[in-house]
Parts: sequence; structure tokens; C-alpha cells
Amino acid sequence: MSRGFVVWLTGLSGAGKSTLAGLLAAELRARGLRVETLDGDEVRENLSKGLGFSKEDRDTNVRRIGYVARLLARNGVAVIAAVISPYAAVRDEVRAAVEQAEGHPRFIEVHVDCAIEELTRRDTKGLYAKAQRGEIANFSGVSDPYEAPTAPELRIDTEAQSAEASLDTVLSLLDREGLIDGLGMTRAH
Amino acid sequence: MSRGFVVWLTGLSGAGKSTLAGLLAAELRARGLRVETLDGDEVRENLSKGLGFSKEDRDTNVRRIGYVARLLARNGVAVIAAVISPYAAVRDEVRAAVEQAEGHPRFIEVHVDCAIEELTRRDTKGLYAKAQRGEIANFSGVSDPYEAPTAPELRIDTEAQSAEASLDTVLSLLDREGLIDGLGMTRAH
Repeated sequence: MSRGFVVWLTGLSGAGKSTLAGLLAAELRARGLRVETLDGDEVRENLSKGLGFSKEDRDTNVRRIGYVARLLARNGVAVIAAVISPYAAVRDEVRAAVEQAEGHPRFIEVHVDCAIEELTRRDTKGLYAKAQRGEIANFSGVSDPYEAPTAPELRIDTEAQSAEASLDTVLSLLDREGLIDGLGMTRAH
Repeated sequence: MSRGFVVWLTGLSGAGKSTLAGLLAAELRARGLRVETLDGDEVRENLSKGLGFSKEDRDTNVRRIGYVARLLARNGVAVIAAVISPYAAVRDEVRAAVEQAEGHPRFIEVHVDCAIEELTRRDTKGLYAKAQRGEIANFSGVSDPYEAPTAPELRIDTEAQSAEASLDTVLSLLDREGLIDGLGMTRAH
């Protein structure tokens, strides 16, 4: 049975977490791994309806996603979490819980990074403009803190590189860490 | 990769759900299956802190456990849920969600049944006495409804048979359903 692990994508809204999660999930599935993607919005609907975006509620939501990630990873699943998860302390708490689970699944924290200026420029959903006009309270990076990881396993600059290049960066790391088999590469490089 | 499934143990407090879950988990693990037990109290702590025992809150809690069970089962895990889950409609909702997931995991509903008189007599935690004195609101079977399944895959009478006999009954069903390999029986019979 293959060893589970968690790739935790943290970063601001619009930075490219879900895009990268989708590409990575497809790639890992193509290699025969069990893969589960925990996307912030979908998980919130299923596990945290009624919670808001205060620090306390966000922390609770992230802890719940971490709990589910841990259950899956200790059962051999490759978990990809795509969650803003703005607070460092709770991310570290989730990391510790995952790494202490049966089989000691690896926790790979990936900071999906993009400058706020670029996010404001793209603003595909119009959320940054709204937040900057004060119409969205608790919007991470604008009206709410985002504590960037100080020592993530990876930092990916999605302003500087394409989603495909970001995917390659993640795959290379997973390969070096022995979590996937480099020989099994299915994509053209 | 083995096929996931969900054994959903429903029944009143003290009826023997957790005991049966523990025996079943050990037995399935000994057969090499990935096994995860979702025990009502533990899951409530992790996924539903702040929720109470009103119908609405119970339904939300059961839905969340069902969501996690579905994620695990569609990734090949044998899930054992031990949850009072007193309302039939939400149990059926969880069943449908599990059975519609990728790989169509089986949902085996087991009514862990014991007469309320016997539960009141045992009352190892003193909860029935308290509930009957009106000191616990929303106590299933006393001050709150318990809707017994009308067509569960199994009904186990824990008043009439030992935990070991109950385990055998469940294992026989899982074997007949092709979810475990009968030849791999590890227990003496």
C-alpha cells in the first residue's frame, strides 16, 4: 500500500491554489495514486457551514480540513489541500497532527505566492476591488492578515511562472522526497 | 487497490456500537484492509464543536461524518462509523451520498439494537437515569426520538447475543457481499 502524504497549498485568493491542485491531482492519479483534493470552498460547505471568516472561525475551519487530511493520509491517500489558511500557528498545528499520525505521513507546505498588486490587477472575481473598497471584511491580504510561511517546503511564485512550471516544481520535490516514483513520469518534459 | 465501503452502526447510547466497532476494526485490519473508525464522540470533537443535540445540529453532525466516510470509502478505506444517528432521513441521505461516490462504495447499515429497558438496567454511565429524571434534554430514546432503521442490511440484538457473536454476524455479511475474503478469516470459529 502506498504511503499517504499531504500537499498543503496556502496562499491568497486568486494566487492559483485551485489551478495547481487540479493539475497535481490529475498527474498523481495518472501515476496510480489514491488522490483526494480538499478545496477550501467545497470543504467549508460540507464541514463548516455557519462558520464565518473571523480568526477563530477560520482556525476552526482549517483544523477540520487538517483532521480530514490526516485521516486520509494515514490511510495511504495523497491529499491536496487548497486553502488560504492565513494563520501560521494553525498551519503548524495541522502539520504536527499529520506528521504524528500512523505511518507518519509527510506534510509538504507549498506557499502559492503572488504579489498583492498582481492579484489586484487580475482580480478575476472582482473580490480585491470589493475588499479594497471596504465591502468585504476579513479578506486575507487586504482587510485581514495573511501570515506567509517562513519555512515552507516550497514557495512558488505564480506571477513569475506558469501553472505547468509550478506543477513540475511540485512533482520534482515529491520525487526527491521519495513520495512519487520519478521513473513513472507521465508528462512530457 | 481494495474497494472501500462503509459499515454504519446506528443505535442508542450504550447499545454496543463502539465495542462492535473496535472488534470489527481489529478484525478488518488483521486482514490487511485500510480501516478507519469514525466514533461519534471523537468526530464531534473534531468536526462539530459548538453544535448541540437539537435535530438540526445532530443532522449537521451526521452529515459531516457521512462526508468524511464518503471521502475515505471512495479512496479504498473500510470505514466503520459508530454514531447514534437517530434520524432515518439523514442516514438515508448519507447512504445515497456514499453509494453515488466514485467506485460506488457499499453502505452497510447495521442497527445495533438493544431494548431501552435493558439499556436502562445496564446504564454504565448513569446517563439513562439522568435522562429519565429530565436532567438530559435531547437524549435519544428517552427525551428525544430514535428512528430505528426499517430496512437495515443487518439488525443485531446485543441483548440476545455477545459482542463476538455480533462480530461474526457482521463478518459473514461482509463476506457474502464480497467486501472481504472469507478465506482470509483470521479468527477461530
